[in-house]
Amino acid sequence: MATLQDIVLSAAINILSALVFLVLFAILRLQPFNDRVYFPKWYLKGLRTSPAQSGVFANFVNLDWRSYIKFWTWVPDALRMPELELIDHAGLDSAVYLRIYLLGLKIFVPVTLLAWSVLVPVHWTNSTLKLSDVTFSDIDKLSISNVPIGSQRFWTHTVMAYAFTFWTCYTLQKEYAKIAEMRLHYISSERRRPDQFTVLVRNIPPDTDESVGECVEHFFLVNHPDHYLTHQVVCNANRLADLVKQKKSKQNWLDYYQLKYSRNPSNRPMKKTGFLGLFGEKVDAIDYQTAEIETLTKEIDAERGKVINDPKSIMPASFVSFKSRWGAAVCAQTQQSRDPTIWLTEWAPEPRDVYWENLAIPFVSLTIRRLIIGVAFFFLTFFFMIPITMVQTMASIEGLEKRASFLKGVIEVPFIKSFIQGVLPGLALKIFLIFLPTILMIMSKFEGFLSISALERRSASRYYLFNFVNVFLGSIIAGAAFEQLNTFIHQSANDIPKIIGVAIPMKATFFITYIMVDGWAGVAGEVLRLKPLIIFHLKNFFLVKTEKDREEAMDPGSLGFNTGEPQIQLYFLLGLVYAVVTPLLLPFILIFFGLAYVVFRHQIINVYNQEYESSAAFWPDVHGRIVCALVISQLFLMGLLSTKEAALSTPLLIALPVLTIWFHLFCKGRYEPAFIRYPLQEAMMKDTLERARDPKVNLKAYLQNAYIHPVFKNSDNDEDADDEKFTGETELVPTKRQSRRNTPAPSKVSGGSSP
Amino acid sequence: MATLQDIVLSAAINILSALVFLVLFAILRLQPFNDRVYFPKWYLKGLRTSPAQSGVFANFVNLDWRSYIKFWTWVPDALRMPELELIDHAGLDSAVYLRIYLLGLKIFVPVTLLAWSVLVPVHWTNSTLKLSDVTFSDIDKLSISNVPIGSQRFWTHTVMAYAFTFWTCYTLQKEYAKIAEMRLHYISSERRRPDQFTVLVRNIPPDTDESVGECVEHFFLVNHPDHYLTHQVVCNANRLADLVKQKKSKQNWLDYYQLKYSRNPSNRPMKKTGFLGLFGEKVDAIDYQTAEIETLTKEIDAERGKVINDPKSIMPASFVSFKSRWGAAVCAQTQQSRDPTIWLTEWAPEPRDVYWENLAIPFVSLTIRRLIIGVAFFFLTFFFMIPITMVQTMASIEGLEKRASFLKGVIEVPFIKSFIQGVLPGLALKIFLIFLPTILMIMSKFEGFLSISALERRSASRYYLFNFVNVFLGSIIAGAAFEQLNTFIHQSANDIPKIIGVAIPMKATFFITYIMVDGWAGVAGEVLRLKPLIIFHLKNFFLVKTEKDREEAMDPGSLGFNTGEPQIQLYFLLGLVYAVVTPLLLPFILIFFGLAYVVFRHQIINVYNQEYESSAAFWPDVHGRIVCALVISQLFLMGLLSTKEAALSTPLLIALPVLTIWFHLFCKGRYEPAFIRYPLQEAMMKDTLERARDPKVNLKAYLQNAYIHPVFKNSDNDEDADDEKFTGETELVPTKRQSRRNTPAPSKVSGGSSP
Repeated sequence: MATLQDIVLSAAINILSALVFLVLFAILRLQPFNDRVYFPKWYLKGLRTSPAQSGVFANFVNLDWRSYIKFWTWVPDALRMPELELIDHAGLDSAVYLRIYLLGLKIFVPVTLLAWSVLVPVHWTNSTLKLSDVTFSDIDKLSISNVPIGSQRFWTHTVMAYAFTFWTCYTLQKEYAKIAEMRLHYISSERRRPDQFTVLVRNIPPDTDESVGECVEHFFLVNHPDHYLTHQVVCNANRLADLVKQKKSKQNWLDYYQLKYSRNPSNRPMKKTGFLGLFGEKVDAIDYQTAEIETLTKEIDAERGKVINDPKSIMPASFVSFKSRWGAAVCAQTQQSRDPTIWLTEWAPEPRDVYWENLAIPFVSLTIRRLIIGVAFFFLTFFFMIPITMVQTMASIEGLEKRASFLKGVIEVPFIKSFIQGVLPGLALKIFLIFLPTILMIMSKFEGFLSISALERRSASRYYLFNFVNVFLGSIIAGAAFEQLNTFIHQSANDIPKIIGVAIPMKATFFITYIMVDGWAGVAGEVLRLKPLIIFHLKNFFLVKTEKDREEAMDPGSLGFNTGEPQIQLYFLLGLVYAVVTPLLLPFILIFFGLAYVVFRHQIINVYNQEYESSAAFWPDVHGRIVCALVISQLFLMGLLSTKEAALSTPLLIALPVLTIWFHLFCKGRYEPAFIRYPLQEAMMKDTLERARDPKVNLKAYLQNAYIHPVFKNSDNDEDADDEKFTGETELVPTKRQSRRNTPAPSKVSGGSSP
Repeated sequence: MATLQDIVLSAAINILSALVFLVLFAILRLQPFNDRVYFPKWYLKGLRTSPAQSGVFANFVNLDWRSYIKFWTWVPDALRMPELELIDHAGLDSAVYLRIYLLGLKIFVPVTLLAWSVLVPVHWTNSTLKLSDVTFSDIDKLSISNVPIGSQRFWTHTVMAYAFTFWTCYTLQKEYAKIAEMRLHYISSERRRPDQFTVLVRNIPPDTDESVGECVEHFFLVNHPDHYLTHQVVCNANRLADLVKQKKSKQNWLDYYQLKYSRNPSNRPMKKTGFLGLFGEKVDAIDYQTAEIETLTKEIDAERGKVINDPKSIMPASFVSFKSRWGAAVCAQTQQSRDPTIWLTEWAPEPRDVYWENLAIPFVSLTIRRLIIGVAFFFLTFFFMIPITMVQTMASIEGLEKRASFLKGVIEVPFIKSFIQGVLPGLALKIFLIFLPTILMIMSKFEGFLSISALERRSASRYYLFNFVNVFLGSIIAGAAFEQLNTFIHQSANDIPKIIGVAIPMKATFFITYIMVDGWAGVAGEVLRLKPLIIFHLKNFFLVKTEKDREEAMDPGSLGFNTGEPQIQLYFLLGLVYAVVTPLLLPFILIFFGLAYVVFRHQIINVYNQEYESSAAFWPDVHGRIVCALVISQLFLMGLLSTKEAALSTPLLIALPVLTIWFHLFCKGRYEPAFIRYPLQEAMMKDTLERARDPKVNLKAYLQNAYIHPVFKNSDNDEDADDEKFTGETELVPTKRQSRRNTPAPSKVSGGSSP
């Protein structure tokens, strides 16, 4: 078991690495040649075009020593932008995402204060561990393990559990209400957007006499006669998109060779045509790539013509637009046909948010896909663990000594021993988990969700489940998940919380290490953006010729809800579970939430490019998972206390999960509709306002091409898939940029926070 | 343990009592003076006004011996009416209710045939029980207990489990599709009904400036400008209804005394004014009642005026009617306000179906009520068992001998012993359960459902849960439910199905007895209608003066979904659980389904008065519970087989519950919307048709008073609550009666099936 010294050392290492990251960041961000890595958002918004703003700087390296002294100013700068402006600048999704960290602070600051002022003294003033012959560390003296069995002091824990639950629920409810209001306000204050008028219709039944387009038109003219305006059919352009992507890649290679040639005109670049350029005939690279691109261009043209003209490439789905928001709201919320598997309507996602590949999956196939993915996820969760456990056992001192006895001398050095015990287990787990989100995203795609936001939400809940089973339970009860599953099946419902509850206090030190590695150092690494930094400079050196190329070489990244949120949730879970058991853990979580809030606020303001706007549609998930963590913490506490022979206080705890679940149902009924449905009153109000303000708008022209497949968006063949994102941005939210320019002074400050 | 002789005796007794009931029924129903007891439906429909139809009969007793010979003709008569006509005659609810029995036959006839041709030989040809020293009966030789542990024969059971599951799912899916289609067809073929145009709006927010009515009008004029037609506010007339009921009762007593006086004019009836007429001053009964009625009449008038004029008696709920079905369908399916707890809209139930008392419960109160009832139901289910277990242990031979040793001589007589073992346990349980539905109904009412059909559906699911825990599990594992709960909490998830699975084959005889008492004799008792028979004749003798009185004295009763359906479900559960384990039980269930089908078809045609029409809204519940029974049977079979060391076949069974649950989700997605939502296409079609057929209809006048509280319905003070039902009937479904008269010959036959 790790001792206090291990923790201190681990903390020192992690604080040090976090500091190194932050200092590196502070220096690198001041260099003008890194400007596009650390401030891409401003370039994308068109508010900045070159790093040399004030002219004091050299072209590549910042020589102004004064700016180095104020290196920490990015922190207040990040915090300075008011929330309303942040919403305007980066969208509601980002602003609400930040509120998850704030919610963490709101919940855990009072919890920490209360736990330290009440529970720590209660734990510390016992001497159970001293009297017993178990080896223990000083940390354990601060945990519930130090309270003797059958002690009356467990009443404190019961009371605290109630207090923490009520505080958490209170905060959650306040936050849910606030977010729901923000969402409705955001939706109602937005200017006209295509998705407000548009409904996505799927599973259009095939008709022998009519094309899909005619069928849609007739159906909606009959059933929504006063409201139907127009529609856009969906084409299966997956192959076309693929070809365009290939061409893009070849174009990049051509650019690379041309640049190489221009720099060294004496040596015409050659390449091999075979696999990865390693085998085959050697040819002139520039000529070869030019020829390849030409072939592809022809193929693309042929495919484009085919997609547009061939009725077979039209999918049985369509975007149907209405004359008013009211009409669209009605159509999205009602059932159209007596067969509930055809003419399925739902709100169209934002054009940027549509996941085009999945628009044509029929109902029966969807249910089968769901079954398959459900079973697959079960196996993934419970049998994926084998490698993790192997690494963890190997990374323990005993494991290493057994397997590699020649290392014994080295390992026994106190510093290295502490390092191994403090850092390795958490690190191994972390590295392993990096590969998971991609698999989960593929599973969600296979399951058939229609928008990127829904895909990410689904992946996030899977990731959370996975984290819960494998990181949380897997770390508490050593052994692979399938072994746990086997154990749990053979345990009574009463014993499972007991087994876990008893193990929880013993694992506090492991989780403290984990928080420091994953939370502190991880977040500090996020702000440094090492990977985009390297890639940008590589691209800049090898590919960039024009300003446009430089723009494309930027990789601002985005928030990544599917990986970020489940990790935050793990901290909520740890905080709630350990709040009563080992309050020592709470300050570590507080530091994580604080640091992450600042870092991500900075990143959202300066770096990330928003990929879509779902108007905080993810909040019900976030809320639900925190409630879930709360219930889990209550069950484990019950299990733990029941082994402590605190006979009277355990039954009292049974009411807590019941009340918490009821609270969840209440919130679900009260606030969730705001995230799923669109109230007619709002729609009518906005319609009326707009009609009064702008009575002659040509809505049909406005909506005609809003939902066109991204490959068709650019008539210029050279600008495609990747580029389209920016076009989308510019097309869709010109108003934001406008309002951004009109914001009052403080924003200029934070906007100009870079040197 | 009961032997084969016990079963035979029990069967004999039950068949005998069922036969006695049926013969009694056959005789009594031929007597003209019982005509209003056994054929009230025809009187209510106005198709029959007096029993003397063909004039061959004496006024009271049927003397025509020929009709006695053909006493069994009610069975073919009951089966003769085609389903479409039945829907016309008694409504879709009744017709679909009968299909539950038919579904039982459809599922269990092939299952029985297969089980008897495959499993019975497999079981019979073993001799495990003979070799072991356990006492056993011949019945056990037919059960799975007779197969030796570790036998390869258990493969048969695995294959059979798959076969039964697939057959059940196939039948269920067919039936769901059929019922959904019947429902949609019924709804679309109905003539104009007020609930097609009307939406119930609840939780109207209070407004200081406007009355509820004005508020509703303004809101819907703004948000549904093209569709809003009119509205009716809901008054709190609960006290008024109460007073009217009191007056009705006093009027009955007055009638009784007047009749008594007219028969014996010399002796003027007297009564005491105190509690139950047992204490207090003796007064002239007629004068006293007349005075009381006068006081009440005045009070009623005052209250009526108050309810109509006092704004405080107007509840924040309203029935809002629209110009078209489309408008109503839209309003019912959408969210109106950004606050999802106000302006709640849902389809208005049929006027007959409205449960007026609950219309004004606010949202927060509703969620709290749900929590309270949830907890209360938990305690009811698990702690209500104490008395039942006491009765059951007492009713066992050993229990009786221990407690009442003086009875030992009597009990040991073989016949009595068999009687006690065969009949008593089932009977005790049955009597006890009679009191339950009322409690569950009160719980549902407290929970705040808005229509009688929803109340009954909710009570039914609670009743099923109760039956499952207390009748099914309680009989399999002796011991009170709370003891079981305690046991289960301390057992592993793996062991629970094992414990139950092992106990299942041993309880087959008990359940066979139960089926005979509850199923066979119970159903035969239902057709006899002993209680209504006695009450009718009492009323007829003491109260009836006019034809109208006689009409009121009829108590046709109704289907009682909340008690009937959960009991049928118990038979589905028993059938599915025992299909593989003890196929001997299946024929008993088949006989129950067959008998019940005939009896209830007869009752629905001739007796029951339909209280409301929910257009088979209960089917998703029925379907869900059968699927639930299927999953339970699979789990228990898994548990049972895993103790038989049939190592390879058990893992194969795990896929069954997964597939079954997936099947359920598929059906839910595919068919359930037909029971919850109203497709716009249908609405539009009906609107268009009607507009073409009847362009000048005054819809406003038609809808103006459709949703008026029943106490206001009759301007005549003497006709009230009870009477209103018929008025409702006549007002609402005049078309049915019309079409009934035009039906072809066969209906005349079944209509004239009475002597």
